[in-house]
Amino acid sequence: MVNYTDRMSTLGLIEYKDASPEVRAVYDDIRATRKTDFINNFWKAIAHDPATLKRTWESIKQIMAPGALDPLTKEMIYIAVSVTNQCGYCIASHTVSAQNKGMTDAMFKEMMAVVGMANETNKLVTGYQVEIDEQFKPSR
Amino acid sequence: MVNYTDRMSTLGLIEYKDASPEVRAVYDDIRATRKTDFINNFWKAIAHDPATLKRTWESIKQIMAPGALDPLTKEMIYIAVSVTNQCGYCIASHTVSAQNKGMTDAMFKEMMAVVGMANETNKLVTGYQVEIDEQFKPSR
Amino acid sequence: MVNYTDRMSTLGLIEYKDASPEVRAVYDDIRATRKTDFINNFWKAIAHDPATLKRTWESIKQIMAPGALDPLTKEMIYIAVSVTNQCGYCIASHTVSAQNKGMTDAMFKEMMAVVGMANETNKLVTGYQVEIDEQFKPSR
Amino acid sequence: MVNYTDRMSTLGLIEYKDASPEVRAVYDDIRATRKTDFINNFWKAIAHDPATLKRTWESIKQIMAPGALDPLTKEMIYIAVSVTNQCGYCIASHTVSAQNKGMTDAMFKEMMAVVGMANETNKLVTGYQVEIDEQFKPSR
Amino acid sequence: MVNYTDRMSTLGLIEYKDASPEVRAVYDDIRATRKTDFINNFWKAIAHDPATLKRTWESIKQIMAPGALDPLTKEMIYIAVSVTNQCGYCIASHTVSAQNKGMTDAMFKEMMAVVGMANETNKLVTGYQVEIDEQFKPSR
Amino acid sequence: MVNYTDRMSTLGLIEYKDASPEVRAVYDDIRATRKTDFINNFWKAIAHDPATLKRTWESIKQIMAPGALDPLTKEMIYIAVSVTNQCGYCIASHTVSAQNKGMTDAMFKEMMAVVGMANETNKLVTGYQVEIDEQFKPSR
Repeated sequence: MVNYTDRMSTLGLIEYKDASPEVRAVYDDIRATRKTDFINNFWKAIAHDPATLKRTWESIKQIMAPGALDPLTKEMIYIAVSVTNQCGYCIASHTVSAQNKGMTDAMFKEMMAVVGMANETNKLVTGYQVEIDEQFKPSR
Repeated sequence: MVNYTDRMSTLGLIEYKDASPEVRAVYDDIRATRKTDFINNFWKAIAHDPATLKRTWESIKQIMAPGALDPLTKEMIYIAVSVTNQCGYCIASHTVSAQNKGMTDAMFKEMMAVVGMANETNKLVTGYQVEIDEQFKPSR
Repeated sequence: MVNYTDRMSTLGLIEYKDASPEVRAVYDDIRATRKTDFINNFWKAIAHDPATLKRTWESIKQIMAPGALDPLTKEMIYIAVSVTNQCGYCIASHTVSAQNKGMTDAMFKEMMAVVGMANETNKLVTGYQVEIDEQFKPSR
Repeated sequence: MVNYTDRMSTLGLIEYKDASPEVRAVYDDIRATRKTDFINNFWKAIAHDPATLKRTWESIKQIMAPGALDPLTKEMIYIAVSVTNQCGYCIASHTVSAQNKGMTDAMFKEMMAVVGMANETNKLVTGYQVEIDEQFKPSR
Repeated sequence: MVNYTDRMSTLGLIEYKDASPEVRAVYDDIRATRKTDFINNFWKAIAHDPATLKRTWESIKQIMAPGALDPLTKEMIYIAVSVTNQCGYCIASHTVSAQNKGMTDAMFKEMMAVVGMANETNKLVTGYQVEIDEQFKPSR
Repeated sequence: MVNYTDRMSTLGLIEYKDASPEVRAVYDDIRATRKTDFINNFWKAIAHDPATLKRTWESIKQIMAPGALDPLTKEMIYIAVSVTNQCGYCIASHTVSAQNKGMTDAMFKEMMAVVGMANETNKLVTGYQVEIDEQFKPSR
C-alpha cells in the first residue's frame, strides 16, 4: 500500500523507519544538531540519493553555523535568495527557521522591504543599461 | 558635443551641473545622507525621470536606515538578491557599500557561501517536487 | 479564535475592521481610486508594515496612472514581468486587472506570444554568447 | 584567416557572403521585412543552425506583426521580459527597435517604472506568502 | 454550463470535442506522434490561440526529435531548465515524459545533483565578480 | 605591487605560488583530476575561502564523475542551467569543458534549441495559469 506521505515528492519521502543505515546516520545528525525529532520533507525527498543527502546536509551544517555572521543573519540571507527565486517551500521553511532563531516580525518586515527594493533597483539599473562606475570595480 | 560620461546609459547620465533644481535637490540629499560628494551612475541615469529618481531615493533612504536590522545586514541582503538576479552593477556597487559599512572579507565569504547553498537547495526542493510540511505553513 | 482569512499569509491578513487609522487611510484611498470596496490579499498582508503599505500603494498609484502609456499597456507590462518571474499571485491578479481595463482575449494571447518568444530568444542570445552590435550601444 | 567579426559568438558569425542559400533566404527576408540591409549579430550567430534560424525568424515575424496589439507595445513587452531576465544584448537591441518604432523617452521611462515596480511587488507577494484571492482565480 | 476542466487555466481548456478543425489537426498530430490519446492541459490551454498552438507544437516536435542528441537527453535538459525557472507544471510533465523515455531514478538523481551544483556555482562566480579567463572566450 | 591578474575578482585571484598548503592541495587535485596545469579564475577567486574552495571542488568532482549519466551529458545540463541563469562566466567555461569532452557543434545547437524552447514553454504554461494534470502528479 502506498502511504500518503510517500506521495508528496517525485520519488516519495523516506521515513526514518524505512531508511538505510547511511540515511539514518544523517537523520540522526540533523536531529542532534537541531535538537528536535522533526525531519522535514526536503531531507526525506533527497534521501533517495544518499550521496546528495549527506553532501547537502554537511554543507548546510558547515555554512549555517555561527561564524563571522550569526545564524539568524544567515537565515535571513537564505530567505532573501529564496524569495528572489520564488521558491515557495524554501520561503516557508526558512521563515519558520528564522523565527525559531529569533527573527521578530519587525525584522522580517525590514528584510522583506530590502528584498523588494533590491529587486526593483536591480531591474532599473539593467534596463537603463548603466555602466559600472570605476569606483565600484574590484581593486584587488 | 557628446560627453563621454553621457554615453554610458540608455538616456545618458545627468551631471550635477546640468541637472534641474528638482534633480539637484535629490543629489544634494544623497550627498548629505551619504556624507560624500560622489553620485554614482545609477542616480545619474534614472535622473532623466525625476519622479522615479525621487521615489527611488526616498524609498531606499527609508528602507536602508537603521531599524530592527542594522544597515550592514541590509546591505548584505541587498547583495544576496543582486547575486541571485545576476545584476553585475548592483553586486559591484553594494559590495563596496557593504565594505564601507564594515563588511569584512570573512563576512563576505560567509554571506556568499549562504547565497550559493540557498540557490542550490532552492532547486533541489523544486526539482524533487517537495510538498510544504504542515509545520511550515503560515499559522496566522 | 483564529479567523480562516487570517491564515493565508506569513503574518496574516489585516481586515478593514481590525486596521489602524494609518492602514485604513491607505485602504480608503485604494477603494476610492479603484472605485470598489474590494481590497485584495496583497494589501492586507503587507499592512502589517504600514510604511511598506503606504510606500508601495503610493508608488503603484503614481506609476500605473495614465501618462505617456495608457493604464492597460502598463498592466500588460506588469503581467509580462510577473510571468517571467513565475509569480502566480501576480499573474492571477494583474490578468484580472488588465481584463477589467479592457484587455481582450486576443490581446492577452498576443501578449503571451511575445512573452514566450522573448524568453526563448533571451536564452538563445546568451547561450550563443552573442556580442552587442555597435549599432545597439547607447549613443547618449 | 579568422575574421574579427567571426569571433564574437560561440560558433562565430556568418556573414551574408559566406552564407548558404538557405541562410541567405532568411537574411533576405529579414532585410525585406525590416526595410534595412543591417543584419544584427543574433541572426548571424544562430545561422550556424539553419533550422533554428528559420524557425526563430518566422516565429518572430509572425508574433511581432501588428494585430490586437501594435508593434511598439509588443517591443516594450519584449524589453520588459529582457530586463527581468537581465539579458544585456536583448535590452540593447530591443530598446533601439522600440525607439525606431516610435518609443519616446517618456514612454521608455514609464515602461521602466512599471518593470521596476512589478519586480518589487512580485517579491513582496511571494515573501509574505500571500494566497490568491478567490476573485482572481480563473473562472473559465 | 461551465465544465470543471474548463476552469483550470486563464482562458479555460479546449477539449477535442469542442475544438475547431484547425485545433483538432494539431491534437491529432500530437496523438499520432506520441502514440497516446492523452492531450495534456498545456495544449488545451494554448489552443485558444491556434497560431501559438500550431507553432509551439511544430517547434517542439522538430526540436525534441532524435538527432545529435537522443530524446531522453533532451528531456533532461528540458527538466534542468524548468527546475531553474521554478516552473512546477513543466517539472511535473517533463519528469513523467523523461521517465516514459527511460529515465531511471539513478539518472534523475544525478541530473538533479548537477542542476543543484550548477545553480550554486553560477552564483558563486557572479558574487565573487570573476572575470572570464582568456582561454574560455569564443575563438571563432 | 598589485598584480594584474589579482584585480579580476572581488577579493582578487590566488595564484599557486601564493597559495597556502590547504589551497595548494585542492589546486593539485584539480590539476591531477583534469590532467592539465590550468586552474581557471573561479577556483582562484573562491580560494580566499578555503572551506568553500574545498567543499565546492569535492562536490563538483563527485557530481560530475561518470555514473548513470556520462560526463558530457552532465556538462550540457550544466550549460542549460547557466544559460537559463544568464551566467556569462559559467556559459563560457562549461561550453569549453563540454567541447573538450566531445560536444560537437551539432550537439551544442540541439542543446541550445531545447534550452530556448523550454524557456518559452515554461512561460506560456505559467502565463496561461495551467493546472497540473492528474497524470503528472508524483505517484510515489
